[in-house]
This record gives sequence, C-alpha cells and structure tokens, in this order.
Amino acid sequence: MTLSDSSSAQRRLQVALGSRSYPIHIGPGLLGDPEWLSPYLAGRQVMIVTNETVAPLYLERCRGGLPADAEVRELVLPDGEATKTLASVSRIWDALLEAGFNRRCTLVALGGGVIGDMVGFAAACYQRGVAFIQVPTTLLSQVDSSVGGKTGVNHPLGKNMIGAFWQPRAVLIDTDTLASLPSRELSAGLAEVIKYGLIRDADFLAWLEEAMPALRDLDAAALTRAIERSCALKAEIVAEDETEQGVRALLNLGHTFGHAIEAHQGYGKWLHGEAVGAGMLMAAELSHRLGWLDEAEVARTRALIEAAGLPLAVPAEMGEEDFLARMRLDKKNLDHRLRLILLRALGDACVHDQTPDDQLSALLRDFPRR
Amino acid sequence: MTLSDSSSAQRRLQVALGSRSYPIHIGPGLLGDPEWLSPYLAGRQVMIVTNETVAPLYLERCRGGLPADAEVRELVLPDGEATKTLASVSRIWDALLEAGFNRRCTLVALGGGVIGDMVGFAAACYQRGVAFIQVPTTLLSQVDSSVGGKTGVNHPLGKNMIGAFWQPRAVLIDTDTLASLPSRELSAGLAEVIKYGLIRDADFLAWLEEAMPALRDLDAAALTRAIERSCALKAEIVAEDETEQGVRALLNLGHTFGHAIEAHQGYGKWLHGEAVGAGMLMAAELSHRLGWLDEAEVARTRALIEAAGLPLAVPAEMGEEDFLARMRLDKKNLDHRLRLILLRALGDACVHDQTPDDQLSALLRDFPRR
Repeated sequence: MTLSDSSSAQRRLQVALGSRSYPIHIGPGLLGDPEWLSPYLAGRQVMIVTNETVAPLYLERCRGGLPADAEVRELVLPDGEATKTLASVSRIWDALLEAGFNRRCTLVALGGGVIGDMVGFAAACYQRGVAFIQVPTTLLSQVDSSVGGKTGVNHPLGKNMIGAFWQPRAVLIDTDTLASLPSRELSAGLAEVIKYGLIRDADFLAWLEEAMPALRDLDAAALTRAIERSCALKAEIVAEDETEQGVRALLNLGHTFGHAIEAHQGYGKWLHGEAVGAGMLMAAELSHRLGWLDEAEVARTRALIEAAGLPLAVPAEMGEEDFLARMRLDKKNLDHRLRLILLRALGDACVHDQTPDDQLSALLRDFPRR
Repeated sequence: MTLSDSSSAQRRLQVALGSRSYPIHIGPGLLGDPEWLSPYLAGRQVMIVTNETVAPLYLERCRGGLPADAEVRELVLPDGEATKTLASVSRIWDALLEAGFNRRCTLVALGGGVIGDMVGFAAACYQRGVAFIQVPTTLLSQVDSSVGGKTGVNHPLGKNMIGAFWQPRAVLIDTDTLASLPSRELSAGLAEVIKYGLIRDADFLAWLEEAMPALRDLDAAALTRAIERSCALKAEIVAEDETEQGVRALLNLGHTFGHAIEAHQGYGKWLHGEAVGAGMLMAAELSHRLGWLDEAEVARTRALIEAAGLPLAVPAEMGEEDFLARMRLDKKNLDHRLRLILLRALGDACVHDQTPDDQLSALLRDFPRR
C-alpha cells in the first residue's frame, strides 16, 4: 500500500444500520458544493449549530449549501469541552422551540466533537427525535465522534454520562477544514487514526507509518485516505454492535488510561487524543508484559505515536493510585470489574478483565513521567 | 360481552417490539408479591423513583418486592405536572451518579404518568440508556403513558417537547393501587379507556357502556378487564408504529382540542383526561358535521363521557381564536397543516387534514360552554 493508491476525489462510505443507515462523504471542497446538504434535510426547517471558533471560518459556506427556500436559523455556542453540558443542549432546545420548529426540522452540527455530541443529543430528544447532519471540522471528530451515533454531554460527576444513541442522516467531511486546525489538534486526531490500525488493521497501520509525514503536512490525498479507512473501520464495528454490547468496546483502546489522565489533569488541559495516545502506549506496554506483543511491536507503536506528535509519557504528578481510583470509576467496568482493551498483536485488540493487579500496578509505577 | 367474562386473576399481555418486546402484568395484589420485580432487573443496582403522594402509600411495598441482595436507592420527587421538567430529571441523574450506578442499573417508576415519563426519560439518557420498569399507580398511566415507550418532560414553550422513545423492561399494574385514587382522577383515566373503544373497538365500547358503574365503583374484575383491553389495543397500535409515523397518531383522538384547553387554562387546572374527554366529544361532533357519525352515535358518545364523570362542555372564557391559536402549535401539525383525529364510525378513527376552516370555526363557536 502506498500513497499513490489514493486520489483526492470525494469518497463515499455507507454505515450499515438497517433503517438507520447513512452515508459518509469525504473529500476536499465539499463545503463549497451548493447541493451537498439538500438530500439529507427532513423538511424546510434547518438549524445550524456551531461554535465561536468555527462560525467565522465556515458558517457562511455551510449556509450557502442549503436550498434557497429553507427556513434557516443559526446558533453559535461558546467553544470548548467545558460547554458540553445539559445547559448548552437546553439552549439548543430553547432556540428550536422559539423558532417554532416541528418534528420535521433538521439540525446541522458544524464543528468538532463537542458540537457533534451536543447537537446529536439535542436532535435525539427534541420532540423525541429529529434529523441531524454531522459536518465535523476537526480530524478527531471526522474519524471518531461523527460516526457511530454516540451523543451526549458531560456531568460534573463524569464525562458523557448523559446521552443517547442517535444516528445522523449523513456525515459530510470536508478535508479542507483541516487547514485551519491547530497542529496540536491535528495530532490529537491522528491518535484515533492510529487506534483503528492498532485494534483491527495491521496493513493500515503499516501505511500510517509511511504516510505520517504527509498527514501532518495536510496532504489532501493522504488525509482523505486516512479518514476514509478510519471511518470504514469504525462503521464496520458500529454496524456489528450499535449499542456497545460487545466488539464496540475495542474502540476504547487507550481510553481507560486516557480518561484517568484527562480527569486528573482537569478536562481540556490534555487534549482527549493526547491522553489516548499515551494511553495506547500504556496498553501496548501492558500487552507486552502479558506476553502478547514483543519488544519490536511496542517500539513500532511508540515510534508511530511519537511521529504523530503525541506524548510518550504521563503527567509527573500522577501516581499509581491516581490512575487506579479513576480507572475503577470508568463506565466500561460492569459490576466494578476492571476491563481493559489490550493488544494480542498489532491490528488485533481484545477485551481483558483478568489483568493481575500486580502487573497493572507495576506498569502504572514504571511508565515514563514527563 | 358481560362483566362475568372477566375474572379478577392476574393477566399478562406482551407488547411486540422485536428485541424491545416486554410484558404487561395486570391484576390485584401484584405489589404484595415478593418476586414480582426480580425477573426484570438488569443487575443488582435499583433506584425506585416516586413522588411525595405515592411514597407513603406504596414505596415500602414496592421495596419489599426486590431481592434481598439488591443495592436499592430511593428518590422521592414532588408531585404534579409542574415538576415534569428537565430539572427534575437532572435530579434523577445526579442521584444515579452520586450512587455510582453503572449501565446495568434499573430504574423503577412508581407513580402516575408524570413519574413514568420522567423516569423513562432519565433511563433513556443515563449512560445512553439503562433498564427501567413501569409501576403505574393511576388509571390514566396504567392504560396510557406506561405503554408505548413515549418518555419526556415539558418545556416552558410546550408539553412533552423534550423526550425519547424508550421501552420499559416490563409494566406492572396492580389494580389495588386505584383504591387510593381520587374519583376525579379515576374519571380522567376512564377518558383514555373510552378513547380506545372509540378509535378501534366498537365491542369494547359497548361493554364500557354497560360496565361504567362497576368501573367507577372500583370493581376489580371490571377494572382488570378495562385495563387489559386498553393496554392490548394500545400495544397493538404501538407495535404497528413504534415511533408515531402513522397509525399511532389515532391515539391522539380528542387531544388536539384537549391540549388547547389545558394550555389555555394552565396545566393542572383541568386534568389531562378531563380535557381529552371534552375533546373527544368535540371530535365526535365535528365528525357528525362532516357526515360521518349520525346523531345517535354522537349521543352515545356524550352519554358515555358523562357516565364516566367527565365534562361535556369547554371553559366559558375560551373563544374560537383561543382554540385555533393553540391547535396550530400542536406538534402533530407537520409543516403547519392542521391534522385532526376524527371518527368515521364508533370504533373507527382516522387522521384528517382537510377539515374546512368554516366547519371547524362553527364547531368551536357552537360547542357548549360551562
């Protein structure tokens, strides 16, 4: 596999979920296409919800993609994970009701994962469910949160604790929007791209090792290919397990460790993808200690995470107990049992709830600090 | 059909919704059965949510029906439609998170329609969906809101505007709980019972004409039969149309008129069932004016609504425009078109969006005031 396998033309994937199936369109120039949103509108009433960072960059272009006879409203929320609250979603509901929008309205989520999660949840519960379209503008949301129907908000006592499974009508990914993305956020998105390779596709992982410089250089063909393969892998997994009863748990590789870092540091200090990057390396290292990965495979994982511009060490002030206390609260731990996603090989993840306490403790003590 | 067809023994119905199917158990003495809730718990964590009126009457009996090893929490909310808000549902989420409840917890909704709608919505969105069991203690909630999976809360700009479709694991209807129900609320519940006869079952309607005195006298056999047939009719309709795209709209017979009355008077002044009772008579009268029902059929409808103890006239201070303004806001009006549920015959309802404006206006002007 080489970069020349890809062209920069638009790609289309289908997420197969029966009557809730939907397409993902990927490529440059989508936002400029005057007909791009129209096929997915439920009726004439459309509300575009975005944030203060994205609005000046893309709101006008997005509005230009709507039919002339649409009844369009806009809502611009503050930016950032701290706004991912029930209060923000209530603002969306207030705006919809004040506009007199009915059950055939459509919400458009223009922004990153926070906007997508909130708008999806608002759509899931407005009049018991209305249509919405994801227009993700960050790499992380393009490859992760815009596919799979997980929507929701944070609660003071936990991330993503309130929400719903609700599928969009379509996901429209314009790779041009990545040009305005800060480099740190690009790296955070690449963490999730790497994750798909690690859990399910060794060939894709090998391609990523080669393509990483082009991806960080915003090469359109490479980005389209990375996003397409990531979305395809996620769509496969979601189609197998829409409501996270089984295989979907694999998507949490690196996340149990990562969430502990984010929670300890205070959300927003480490980007989610940064914490997942370090968390995946912890999972790889623990998989090595359990005898599954060899040293060369851990080294390849470390090199790829480093090439993506992600951290290889965890916060100096986090002790073993800081990790354990938060990992036990993780909602993936049914009946108080610690379940980790580990690697049997590169490209082959599994759910593991038998990790010996002393092995886990040793890893948490030994792992590099920064 | 006579009352002697029924016994007071427990009955069981099944709501057929594929993987979301669930049973409805109906009869006296259910709350006293120590094993009644156990089969439907998702795990050991159980939270009973009820209100200040119901708690002193039934909370202890309900708790007694749980296994000894269950981790049980209780939450008692204020009573009344005014509490059916997002803030109340947030209190449920706070309590669940403070208790450290995971995705395998079960919520038990012990109370009337307000409790059922709020607890169902809380369950729908807690960690993107957990199990819940309906234990309705009013006739209205037993025959209406506990079957069908509609959950949600009111918004200052409209009733039930925020919510989800979320099915319970089971509905457990103990007819003994009706002994503590005020007579006015019993009548309000009978409005919905009559509704099922009017929209879909002329034989049941004829039986109701005969059984109405026994029902108002809390005859256990008559109540069990009325609840069973009402739930069966609603379950049939919900199975045909879970998310209200078509036939389910018929369940709104009398509701467009009724909601206008409730909204104009301020929620809680007229009971929902009282407003629906008057609204059904308005629908019957309009159906007569359109040439579908004859005078004798309207008279039978009026007599049955009267026998149930429901109002036959609307508030004196409501003019034609008071009705029209509120009816146009009704969420059943897709794209601003007024859709009414009318009767082609007793036991045969239809959706009608072609009512001439002058016919509707004349009805609204002529209908008796009180």
